[in-house]
Amino acid sequence: MADNGKNQSIPVAVLGATGSVGQRFVALLDAHPWFRIAHLMASERSAGKPYREAVNWVQTTPIPERVASMMVEVTDPSAIGECRVAFSSLDDTVAGPLEESFARAGVLVVSNAKSHRMDENVPLLVPEVNADHLELTRTQDFGRGAILANPNCSTIGLVLALKPLDDAFGVRDVNVVTMQALSGAGLPGVGGMQAIDNVIPFIGGEEEKMEREARKILGQVSGGKIAGHGVRISTQCNRVSVIDGHTQCVSVKLGQKVDVQDLIRAWREFEGEPQRLDLPSAPKPTIHYLEEENAPQPRLHRELGNGMAIAVGRARPCSLFDFKFVTLSHNTLRGAAGGALLVAELAVRKGLLEGVEAPGGSIV
Amino acid sequence: MADNGKNQSIPVAVLGATGSVGQRFVALLDAHPWFRIAHLMASERSAGKPYREAVNWVQTTPIPERVASMMVEVTDPSAIGECRVAFSSLDDTVAGPLEESFARAGVLVVSNAKSHRMDENVPLLVPEVNADHLELTRTQDFGRGAILANPNCSTIGLVLALKPLDDAFGVRDVNVVTMQALSGAGLPGVGGMQAIDNVIPFIGGEEEKMEREARKILGQVSGGKIAGHGVRISTQCNRVSVIDGHTQCVSVKLGQKVDVQDLIRAWREFEGEPQRLDLPSAPKPTIHYLEEENAPQPRLHRELGNGMAIAVGRARPCSLFDFKFVTLSHNTLRGAAGGALLVAELAVRKGLLEGVEAPGGSIV
Amino acid sequence: MADNGKNQSIPVAVLGATGSVGQRFVALLDAHPWFRIAHLMASERSAGKPYREAVNWVQTTPIPERVASMMVEVTDPSAIGECRVAFSSLDDTVAGPLEESFARAGVLVVSNAKSHRMDENVPLLVPEVNADHLELTRTQDFGRGAILANPNCSTIGLVLALKPLDDAFGVRDVNVVTMQALSGAGLPGVGGMQAIDNVIPFIGGEEEKMEREARKILGQVSGGKIAGHGVRISTQCNRVSVIDGHTQCVSVKLGQKVDVQDLIRAWREFEGEPQRLDLPSAPKPTIHYLEEENAPQPRLHRELGNGMAIAVGRARPCSLFDFKFVTLSHNTLRGAAGGALLVAELAVRKGLLEGVEAPGGSIV
Amino acid sequence: MADNGKNQSIPVAVLGATGSVGQRFVALLDAHPWFRIAHLMASERSAGKPYREAVNWVQTTPIPERVASMMVEVTDPSAIGECRVAFSSLDDTVAGPLEESFARAGVLVVSNAKSHRMDENVPLLVPEVNADHLELTRTQDFGRGAILANPNCSTIGLVLALKPLDDAFGVRDVNVVTMQALSGAGLPGVGGMQAIDNVIPFIGGEEEKMEREARKILGQVSGGKIAGHGVRISTQCNRVSVIDGHTQCVSVKLGQKVDVQDLIRAWREFEGEPQRLDLPSAPKPTIHYLEEENAPQPRLHRELGNGMAIAVGRARPCSLFDFKFVTLSHNTLRGAAGGALLVAELAVRKGLLEGVEAPGGSIV
Repeated sequence: MADNGKNQSIPVAVLGATGSVGQRFVALLDAHPWFRIAHLMASERSAGKPYREAVNWVQTTPIPERVASMMVEVTDPSAIGECRVAFSSLDDTVAGPLEESFARAGVLVVSNAKSHRMDENVPLLVPEVNADHLELTRTQDFGRGAILANPNCSTIGLVLALKPLDDAFGVRDVNVVTMQALSGAGLPGVGGMQAIDNVIPFIGGEEEKMEREARKILGQVSGGKIAGHGVRISTQCNRVSVIDGHTQCVSVKLGQKVDVQDLIRAWREFEGEPQRLDLPSAPKPTIHYLEEENAPQPRLHRELGNGMAIAVGRARPCSLFDFKFVTLSHNTLRGAAGGALLVAELAVRKGLLEGVEAPGGSIV
Repeated sequence: MADNGKNQSIPVAVLGATGSVGQRFVALLDAHPWFRIAHLMASERSAGKPYREAVNWVQTTPIPERVASMMVEVTDPSAIGECRVAFSSLDDTVAGPLEESFARAGVLVVSNAKSHRMDENVPLLVPEVNADHLELTRTQDFGRGAILANPNCSTIGLVLALKPLDDAFGVRDVNVVTMQALSGAGLPGVGGMQAIDNVIPFIGGEEEKMEREARKILGQVSGGKIAGHGVRISTQCNRVSVIDGHTQCVSVKLGQKVDVQDLIRAWREFEGEPQRLDLPSAPKPTIHYLEEENAPQPRLHRELGNGMAIAVGRARPCSLFDFKFVTLSHNTLRGAAGGALLVAELAVRKGLLEGVEAPGGSIV
Repeated sequence: MADNGKNQSIPVAVLGATGSVGQRFVALLDAHPWFRIAHLMASERSAGKPYREAVNWVQTTPIPERVASMMVEVTDPSAIGECRVAFSSLDDTVAGPLEESFARAGVLVVSNAKSHRMDENVPLLVPEVNADHLELTRTQDFGRGAILANPNCSTIGLVLALKPLDDAFGVRDVNVVTMQALSGAGLPGVGGMQAIDNVIPFIGGEEEKMEREARKILGQVSGGKIAGHGVRISTQCNRVSVIDGHTQCVSVKLGQKVDVQDLIRAWREFEGEPQRLDLPSAPKPTIHYLEEENAPQPRLHRELGNGMAIAVGRARPCSLFDFKFVTLSHNTLRGAAGGALLVAELAVRKGLLEGVEAPGGSIV
Repeated sequence: MADNGKNQSIPVAVLGATGSVGQRFVALLDAHPWFRIAHLMASERSAGKPYREAVNWVQTTPIPERVASMMVEVTDPSAIGECRVAFSSLDDTVAGPLEESFARAGVLVVSNAKSHRMDENVPLLVPEVNADHLELTRTQDFGRGAILANPNCSTIGLVLALKPLDDAFGVRDVNVVTMQALSGAGLPGVGGMQAIDNVIPFIGGEEEKMEREARKILGQVSGGKIAGHGVRISTQCNRVSVIDGHTQCVSVKLGQKVDVQDLIRAWREFEGEPQRLDLPSAPKPTIHYLEEENAPQPRLHRELGNGMAIAVGRARPCSLFDFKFVTLSHNTLRGAAGGALLVAELAVRKGLLEGVEAPGGSIV
């Protein structure tokens, strides 16, 4: 047994390790009880340098000592050795084929890129919402390896808020207006002069992604095939002057007549597979319903559950839909690196990876 | 004849002259071609001091020289002498009865307060939208005086964007999510620690005001009575980290099947009574439809038409409503002091004030 | 032994518990290994309500469960019972006499107010810098009680950076320009409209406080009297658009000719009494010298050592003084509540409080 | 005669017309009484497109109609025809030789790049400070053409504040800490995530530039040679969360014992050559000394004199130097495009350009 309850028996690779999501992976994995960083992979420009030199570290915690001196390697499955898990924050322009090559090499790739999200046989996972979609991987032809996709950061916050309502009452129509944080745009991202004293009412491709991904995640898997959810979704996405934390104003039409207290109860009682399996990154609870009239706010509430929980507030009747409310999720923790970790924990605990066992045993 | 085309033959009073909207009135009136500041009125605490000393001036132009040395007077109609026009930015807690006392003294009060906005016989005016509502004043019983109300800052931006659509196609349902500037909260307003790296998803009373006021403004007047517009409106109001400029994400259901180009044409061809009357504060055009995919943005577009025009962009089909788009208006210019000036210009030009003539003559 | 290593055997009171520093005390004390909140005291307006209702909680962690339901009491020493330690974040306007009345009741008052900071017999403590000043309390006449003062938030960051240089080389002249965070102004503090896209080059009384306090803290105590340090200090204080973290541009003239590496070594080797005594809130190290050319930055480095360490960077020769450098400290952690906790830990460990023993024993 | 008093008889070229300073040139020149944009030059990527399409316009006023449809040309002196004045905001990496080639083609190049600023025979001009340095151009060997350099944006604000003090009392030592706006970094510049809730205590090369340039500008020209000023200057440069406006905390040691009122009088009575010549872009006055205890502030005072004046405040004695004060200047108006315009106006009015006459005549 290691100190701090850290066993870290499972070696992992981080692909795209020098980028902003890659850095989040490194920071989170340093303290992870199961996973241990064995490979840091990046572009040729960074390969061959110690991580400390290759990275422009912009996290608020220092670079973990052990990792700082590790050599960055070129992103190549032949170098990954015995390592069977890779977290990918590769750029969309190269992620597609690279991730496949790792999967074919027997690696479980948990990807933040959009490349494979809508592939028929790739589960798009929010572990509290659709853990059962894992079975889609059976139809993948990567041998021992597999690809699991982490959804877009704003999609994750939305479907977590919708799932308890859909389970209990059925969700028919959803209108969403997002106010998204700057960190969602990666580095260099939005310039300071566009970010201050401003709102940018457009994020390229984001509205389409949210509508498409949400229907897949909320959909049903049967017989190795996924049927998208029939919900109608319309989104408007804005970039606002916030560092971390996507706020969303949501309006919903439900399948039943209920009252506000029913919604609040559904959110508060919600528990997902990660909580039942007691996964290390699972927040308890996943959803905080806040009573204050002016909550949730990104600066005050984005860190709830170590940034893995979401906050919901201001549920009230709507004269056009049935209800409207506000939801907030941390876009680089729950919405990116933290969410991907939870996906990997779920997959490992569920025994997806033959030969790789979760501490305490896998559950098949 | 004065220089700069400034005739300034009509003396006016500013009530609440030391507040943030009061300061905007002072700055705008200094260069006004018709109106001349004759009285600066404020609370007892400020009365008796030169304006320069009474005010904590926070405008980006210096205090006008002539006004700086004027004495601030207590807010009392008996002191207003021959002055027949007053711009009120009095606090809601005292505005109601004080404004009435000025009206009874024969003064035309143009008010930014909410006190009388929903009174049956008080027109709630956005001059491009409902100039004909002026006739409601005939049913007021203030003798030669009258009260005209300027709507809430976010309502103004919304109804200006909706009016051309309503005229051309009929507007049935409207969903709005606002991202409002800090200056809308007056002084001291939102604290710096709440304003930076944050969104506050709540503005007290704002959602109700927008829904209620928009229906009145878009309504029909006949026989001295107003019939509210039947449009269903649902709003969610947020405060964002922007100094000036309210951005609104709007979804609309129309009475006819049309396409996006029809909407754009309706906005671009829109002209209101202020433009036809060539009023000094009337922007030409009132509505700028912007083609850029990421417009409008508060920092870039709030000053269009000297802050009296609005910007609209991103019109596109909506899967739940018919269309969605983004609109932006300057909340302390068009949405407050500038809007009130335009109301006063309209009223004077229309001959509402017996014995007070617009330069160039009144039109009855 | 309690769980989490928390013994919490020493009951404490928080005076001014609902304010912004009071909230920080509550958040920090919740996890403290020695201290347990026994009393929450505030103004009459809050007294008699559960803390949850009395406070407008603005911390980024939720209100601790145990504390949320505690009743707020009126600020009165007669109600404090057996409790012997009080953390005061009382307003400067009332702190003076109130803190004395608690001291006379036998309580060790650790104060964030400025009222007693310059009193001859009140130690103004930065535990790494002048732990020996504790002996001044012998000249206080509060019986078993005592008053210890926590310096101004910007003074603390400055003296921590200067102390190792003064010990090693002697500090003669110091020029400082600060760029201070908004949280230093308390609540409501600087308005959002002044805070965004702006710098305010003035903080009332701050420059004088920094110059005066720094000389006292760096001074020598002998025979129960303090002799201020002879250093000449000139400061210019600015408020910038930062939530937490005071940045200071410092220029120093030293008593010896040394080079930049000597300075860096002095900072890196610096260790104070709190580190030697292994106090619970003592950061290790206190000073992080950062090599990056653009460090320290408030958003990246203010949390070092849980906000109790300071960061120093950019040390380089100066053509007017000997050296210039940049220092950064967290103003509400090290600079306020966290600093006061460290003072209390030092006092208790040093046996200042007869009958109150630190876990593990006191050192006299 | 054109309307609006615009004669615009002198055709000019803008080099680097699509960049952020280039855009400022375009916006300012549109309303200029003497100059008319005849050529917009940029990189090959932009050449051949209408300006509207080539530029990502980020100014707060719309693209001038006449300019929007002009074709962007490649940056080549052979295409400039009869045009004899060029404003260069070329990138430092290419500016040096390109500007020389324009000068050799008979063009007066007013440059914002740093390439030629320290050349012995290139005057580095702040027209109120060193108009007489124009004579350096006699030693240039560009035939009818010439190169004039506009200093670094932060240097300009500093020397304008120092010049009246130097003239009256002699300036010996100067310590400066800057808090510089984001717009000074051009596009894309500082990322939004680095800009919000942060200070960056480093701007590459800026400190050296300020020290070096200030000594040249304040120096004496005689016999076609420049002797740098003997003042000792030490600077620390910071980037803060401000859109426009560089704030500087300055400490000065003077050659005489004077009091604060003497300084204020020197600033207030200051008048430079541009004011005496009544140049179109000359602010009157150049220096506003503000009495408010918390002035100057970028958001409130950067627009004084249409952004061409500077604001000074908080002059007070200093315990290390003689005095300290705060100065503020608009970095993209006075500090870049506006300053360059004033330089060109000075040169034309002074008859530097044979065959190009200022409206109203040149003064030799």
